[in-house]
Amino acid sequence: MIRTEIKSVLKEEGVRVGQNVFVSGWIQSIRKSKTFCFVVLNDGSCQNPLQIIVDDTLKEYESISKLLVGSCLGVEGELAASQGKGQSVELKALRVIIYGETNEDYPLQKKATSLEFLRENAHLRARTKLFSAIFRVRHHLAMATHKFFSDEGFYYLNSPILTAVDAEGAGEMFSVTKFDLKKAGELPKIKGSSSLDFSQDYFGKETSLCVTGQLEAECFALGMGKVYTFGPTFRAENSNTSRHLSEFWMIEPEAAFMDLEGNAALATKYVKYLIQYAFDHAHDELEAIQSYLKFSSKSSGETYEDNRKVLENVVQADFVQITYTQAIDILESTKKKFEFPVSWGAELQSEHERFLTEEHFKSPVIVTDYPKDCKAFYMKQNDDNETVRAMDVLVPGIGEIIGGSQREENLEKLQSRIKELGMNPEPLWWYLDLRKFGSAPHSGFGLGFERAIQYITGMKNIRDVIAFPRTPKNCDF
Amino acid sequence: MIRTEIKSVLKEEGVRVGQNVFVSGWIQSIRKSKTFCFVVLNDGSCQNPLQIIVDDTLKEYESISKLLVGSCLGVEGELAASQGKGQSVELKALRVIIYGETNEDYPLQKKATSLEFLRENAHLRARTKLFSAIFRVRHHLAMATHKFFSDEGFYYLNSPILTAVDAEGAGEMFSVTKFDLKKAGELPKIKGSSSLDFSQDYFGKETSLCVTGQLEAECFALGMGKVYTFGPTFRAENSNTSRHLSEFWMIEPEAAFMDLEGNAALATKYVKYLIQYAFDHAHDELEAIQSYLKFSSKSSGETYEDNRKVLENVVQADFVQITYTQAIDILESTKKKFEFPVSWGAELQSEHERFLTEEHFKSPVIVTDYPKDCKAFYMKQNDDNETVRAMDVLVPGIGEIIGGSQREENLEKLQSRIKELGMNPEPLWWYLDLRKFGSAPHSGFGLGFERAIQYITGMKNIRDVIAFPRTPKNCDF
Repeated sequence: MIRTEIKSVLKEEGVRVGQNVFVSGWIQSIRKSKTFCFVVLNDGSCQNPLQIIVDDTLKEYESISKLLVGSCLGVEGELAASQGKGQSVELKALRVIIYGETNEDYPLQKKATSLEFLRENAHLRARTKLFSAIFRVRHHLAMATHKFFSDEGFYYLNSPILTAVDAEGAGEMFSVTKFDLKKAGELPKIKGSSSLDFSQDYFGKETSLCVTGQLEAECFALGMGKVYTFGPTFRAENSNTSRHLSEFWMIEPEAAFMDLEGNAALATKYVKYLIQYAFDHAHDELEAIQSYLKFSSKSSGETYEDNRKVLENVVQADFVQITYTQAIDILESTKKKFEFPVSWGAELQSEHERFLTEEHFKSPVIVTDYPKDCKAFYMKQNDDNETVRAMDVLVPGIGEIIGGSQREENLEKLQSRIKELGMNPEPLWWYLDLRKFGSAPHSGFGLGFERAIQYITGMKNIRDVIAFPRTPKNCDF
Repeated sequence: MIRTEIKSVLKEEGVRVGQNVFVSGWIQSIRKSKTFCFVVLNDGSCQNPLQIIVDDTLKEYESISKLLVGSCLGVEGELAASQGKGQSVELKALRVIIYGETNEDYPLQKKATSLEFLRENAHLRARTKLFSAIFRVRHHLAMATHKFFSDEGFYYLNSPILTAVDAEGAGEMFSVTKFDLKKAGELPKIKGSSSLDFSQDYFGKETSLCVTGQLEAECFALGMGKVYTFGPTFRAENSNTSRHLSEFWMIEPEAAFMDLEGNAALATKYVKYLIQYAFDHAHDELEAIQSYLKFSSKSSGETYEDNRKVLENVVQADFVQITYTQAIDILESTKKKFEFPVSWGAELQSEHERFLTEEHFKSPVIVTDYPKDCKAFYMKQNDDNETVRAMDVLVPGIGEIIGGSQREENLEKLQSRIKELGMNPEPLWWYLDLRKFGSAPHSGFGLGFERAIQYITGMKNIRDVIAFPRTPKNCDF
C-alpha cells in the first residue's frame, strides 16, 4: 500500500473517515491503556502528528506496546473521527511494521533536552517538534526568496565559492589548498622565503572561501540587468557568539540602473514579503516555536515577547529613512547612556541601531550615507567627499538585517579610493573593467539568511536555525 | 521617468505603440544611416533586443553616432510599430543619456569571439547574446528544481560546505584552514611529526570542502521525511576536461520510506520536468543557443544535432530499467568494439553507458544493482552479498546524468561494510546513530546541476554553463 503523508491525512486531501491509509513516521509519544495503546506518530511532513490507536486484539500489540519514543513505524489503518481535542481524525491500526526500534541510549528520550544538548546532537534535531518547525520555516523563507526575486525579474546567479580576491578587504578568510597539510615538512616553499609556493598548488595561486558574491554579481548585473545570489559565504572571525557563524547563507541582489532609493525600496519590499510569506505558509510552525519560547522563557525567567506582533508591525510600517548624520544627531541628543560613545565618523554599534529602531522611531529604519571610512571600497562616493551611498536596514528586535549600497560606477573615483586604502588593484582588473566598458549606475544589498530566520522565528541563537552550525572549534557532522 | 525593461516593452505589458517609455541597456550593434542611426539595445531581461532610431535632429545625435558596441545608454522615446522583420515595435528616441562609453580595447568588439576567449573574459560573458541565454536557462532550471521538489513535498536543506568527513571515501578533497600558509615555517606541528597540529587550527581539527551533502541530508530525511539539497560541492581531482569542474552545484533529494523503485520514479519525473520547464520558460533562449551551435559547427566542421529532438524524446520516453548484470550481458553480446573491456565487476565506462542509451535502447536507461565494489559504502546490500541497490540514470547525448541508491539502513550490515573497506568508523558516529535509533528504509540521488544545464542547452564544455568556472590552475575573478 502506498504511503500517505500525515500532512495529507490531516488536510483530508483525498482521504476521508472510514478509508484505509498507510502512514509512516517516528513515535513522538506512546501511552499504554488497559486494552490498547495510543501512539502519537510524526513524519515531519507538517507540524501536527497523527494519533494512532493500537488495539490489544492486534497480533503486533505485544511488541508495539514495548516500543520507546523515537522508534520508526509504518501503520496501515482505518481513519476514524477523533474523540480527542486538537485533531479531526485518528487512525485505528490494522497492521503495523516496525522499521527501526530505539533503546535507552536514544538521546532525545529525556524530556528536558536543552538547546545546547540538541546542538551536540544536531544529527537528530530534525526529529524534534521544535527543530522540524524551524527547518520548515527556513524552507519556506528560501522559497519566498526565490519567488520574490524571480517575480521581480531577477535572475538567480551562482557566484563562485572559491576565490582569489578579498572582496571586503577585511582579511578574515579561510584558505583553501590541495597541499597535503599532514606532510607540513615537505610542502613546496618559495626559494629564500618561508611562504608556501602557491604556484604549485591546485589553482596555481592563493585561494580562499568567498565572503560575498557581490563583485561577481556586479559582472552579471551589468549585462543581464538584475541578478541575485543565494549561497554560502564564510567568515574566519574568531567570534563565539549567538549571532555569528563561520559558514552562513547570504542573499545578494544586484541591479543595473538602480540607485540607492530603488535599492531601499527593494529591500523594504523583500523584508515585508519574507515575513508575510512565513505567516501564510508556516502558521503552525511559527505558533509551535512561539509556544516553545514562551514555555522556556518561563522556566529560565527570561522576558518573552510575542514575535508575531513585532513582525506584523514591520509588515505594516512605513520604513523611516534617515542619513547617518541625522542618526548621529538623534543619538547625541538623547539622554540615554550608551556603552560605546557616539560621534560622527564612528561605526554605529548594535545598541545605537536598536535605540533608533526600537525606542526612537519604533519602526524599521533605513540609515543612508555613512562616512566612507566605515564602509567598503566599492561604494559610490558622495560629492561631499566624506560619505558614501551606503544603506543599512535596521529592524526592531535585532538591529541591522540588511546592508547595501549604490556602487561606484566611475572608474577614476574607484581607482583613487582603492589607492587611498592601500589596496592592490591588480587582482581587481576585471572589476575595474566593468567601469571601463559600458559602465552603468547600479546597486545591491546583502541579507544574511540565518539572521532573517532568527528574526522571523524568534530563536535567540543563530546556531539553532542552520542545519549543522560551523563556529570556532566546531565542525562536527 | 521610471525604467521599463525591454522584456516588458516587447511583450507590450502595459505599453502600447504611441506611448513614451524609458529603457536602458547596452549597445549590441549600431549602424549609421544618412539622417539617423539604428541602435540595437539589449538589457539582458530577455533574449531579444529593442531597436532604437536616433534621428539627426536630436541634440545628442552627434555623440551617439560615435558610440561603440558595448556602450551603456538610457533612452526615452516613443514606441512605434516596427518596419523591420522579427520585431513588433521600435523606439523613436526623444532623449538619450550616455551612462558609460566604451573604447577600442573593449574585448567583446571583435566579431569572432571564441568560447575560449570568452572564458578568459568571464566577467563580460553575460553581455553576449549566447551567455545571457545560457544563464537565463540556468536560472529557469534552478527555479524548476525548487518548484519540483517543493511541490513533491520535499523541504530544502542547506547541508554544510565545511566538513570533517570524507563522505565518498574518495579522498579528492580540498583542505580548509585558517593557518597563515604564507608563514609556512611558523605553522604549529605535532611534536615528533611533520604533520600540522590541527588542534590549533580554527576548527580544532582537519577540515575540508564537502563532496556531497548526502550524509547530512539523511539525518534530516530521517526526521522531516523528505528533503533536498541544492548547493555547491567540490572535487580536487586533477581533471582538465570539458566535463569536470572543481566547484559545481549539486541537487540531492533524500526521502525516508522510499525504496529504489520510488527513487527511480522520482528521478525520471524530475528529469522530464526539468526539460519541459526549460521548453516552457526559455524557448527563445534555447532557440538562440541552438542557432549559435548550428552556426559554429558549420565553421568548425563538427556534427550538429538538433538538441530539441533529443530532449523531446526524453520527455516522451518510458525509461528502460535493467540491472547491471543485464547491462553486462548486452554489452558482452554486441559486436561493437569498446576501448575499455567489458566484464562483470568492472565499472561501466562512458562508452558503455552511451551505447546502452543511444544505440541499444535508444531511450533513457536506469541501470540498477551494481557490484558493491563499484559503489560507496553506504548503499543497501542485496541478499546476493555481491551487489548493492544503486542506480544510475543514463540519457542519450551524455550518458550518466543521475546517480543514486537506496541506503543501508541496517546497523550491523553498514558497520561490517565500513570495516571491510578499512574505513575509520569514528568520524561517522552520528551517521551510524541514524541506524541505531529509529532507522527507516530511505533513498536518494544526486544530479550535477551543470551536467544537466549542459545537456539541456547542448553546450559542449561545462565551463560555459557556470558563471565563473574553477578548474585546475584556474581560479580567476
